[in-house]
Amino acid sequence: MGEPFVHRLRVRYAECDSQGVLFNAHYLAYIDHSVTELWRAAYGGYERMLERGVDVVVAEARLRFLRPARFDHELDAEMLVTHLGTTSLGSRHRLTDAGDGAVLMEAETRHVWIDRQTNRKTPIPDWARTGLERWYAPEP
Amino acid sequence: MGEPFVHRLRVRYAECDSQGVLFNAHYLAYIDHSVTELWRAAYGGYERMLERGVDVVVAEARLRFLRPARFDHELDAEMLVTHLGTTSLGSRHRLTDAGDGAVLMEAETRHVWIDRQTNRKTPIPDWARTGLERWYAPEP
Amino acid sequence: MGEPFVHRLRVRYAECDSQGVLFNAHYLAYIDHSVTELWRAAYGGYERMLERGVDVVVAEARLRFLRPARFDHELDAEMLVTHLGTTSLGSRHRLTDAGDGAVLMEAETRHVWIDRQTNRKTPIPDWARTGLERWYAPEP
Amino acid sequence: MGEPFVHRLRVRYAECDSQGVLFNAHYLAYIDHSVTELWRAAYGGYERMLERGVDVVVAEARLRFLRPARFDHELDAEMLVTHLGTTSLGSRHRLTDAGDGAVLMEAETRHVWIDRQTNRKTPIPDWARTGLERWYAPEP
Repeated sequence: MGEPFVHRLRVRYAECDSQGVLFNAHYLAYIDHSVTELWRAAYGGYERMLERGVDVVVAEARLRFLRPARFDHELDAEMLVTHLGTTSLGSRHRLTDAGDGAVLMEAETRHVWIDRQTNRKTPIPDWARTGLERWYAPEP
Repeated sequence: MGEPFVHRLRVRYAECDSQGVLFNAHYLAYIDHSVTELWRAAYGGYERMLERGVDVVVAEARLRFLRPARFDHELDAEMLVTHLGTTSLGSRHRLTDAGDGAVLMEAETRHVWIDRQTNRKTPIPDWARTGLERWYAPEP
Repeated sequence: MGEPFVHRLRVRYAECDSQGVLFNAHYLAYIDHSVTELWRAAYGGYERMLERGVDVVVAEARLRFLRPARFDHELDAEMLVTHLGTTSLGSRHRLTDAGDGAVLMEAETRHVWIDRQTNRKTPIPDWARTGLERWYAPEP
Repeated sequence: MGEPFVHRLRVRYAECDSQGVLFNAHYLAYIDHSVTELWRAAYGGYERMLERGVDVVVAEARLRFLRPARFDHELDAEMLVTHLGTTSLGSRHRLTDAGDGAVLMEAETRHVWIDRQTNRKTPIPDWARTGLERWYAPEP
């Protein structure tokens, strides 16, 4: 059973708002940074997908903001693949403060694979499926 | 029954990614821009809230990305207040292309009102409730 | 002699940092928004350039930050074309608070025109030169 | 004589524009990320400055964009302190591709120290001066 993929990052000054904490839209960007790192770990990176004629887009995202992420804190962005459909990939995300372990955000996303030529949905290729299985933990 | 609050904005070059379309996290930022404009229309702006000792944070967001938003297109960000609880505000959002009317994104968010001194939940003040009622359309 | 091209914009919450003012890198983004609006006013927009086989990149920027730009304030981004060389375009920028007229930033930028096929410098086409002349005010 | 302070970072997808390369304003943000890391290495971080009653603002920046920074590439942001005046700090910056060593950007910035109470210029404290000397390489 899959352990989550973990990507550590540090909250940047430019990402904090007047409340002194990470601005809400950047949580969604952090998920994107994690996804990019997952592509790298799974099959060498996003560019490999483009070279092989496929791309991926976000279709859905659901975020629960539990506690503010603070400037300069190191965070662990955890990610699990929860669904590997024909053309779509479901993921579960958790953002924790690497200092005290507090859970800051929980989220789910759904990505869809597309053909670069037609911009239409396309089945997730086998090489991608194999690469992603390491972090696959289907929802019960 | 409430007509949605509408805020028009134009997709900026800096907000588009290598796919040539609005980067996903900016949709959440666009919602925030709309919310800021709603505060203004409802009771004179976000600063009025701070002056009166309250602030607001995003607790939850759910986004469905339907079609890409394209560089330089003008978009209409529509927003309806769907829930006015004791301390929390539910909203429904829709982003459409002002040119062809295509719906690009649908979303729901939940904001929570907090006391600036204690950082804890606080009831939505009457002046805010009154200001927001104009766009109130409770879910059936 | 050219009056500056003026583009009005409002400081967004997401663009302000923990100091409660516009984060420094966004001033450079604001210049880019102005430039995009200038392209539109001069010859119908950036897309017209791409369709005609040219693109433009920033080669140099110099910014002096004079006063902080505050959240929710409306600003006027002024721009003058100060140099129209063979392949390069010099501009002067000024950002003022539309409320009290205070000058917040002064800047100079240099853009270079490139051929989309070769990615190399290319002469500014006549249609572009003509379109830009309206805001041309060469440095003495 | 000072070796530059070096901070490695990776170009994020969200930071790239439709030209497929790092958007120009993010170069200024990268300088800010470097400066934050320099504060950390010099005296424990930006928060230490705030706790001791001082803050710092950018007064001037000059950037020369030499080559595009590409998505997913690792970059080295180099920084040298070139001027330690009474209240102002001059720095020189260089951004190189960690893969092939190509220089992507050169820049100079000037920061000014301010008193948090008055928001006015204040002399750089001795503890800060001492911390920064390690990367001090005055311009000839």
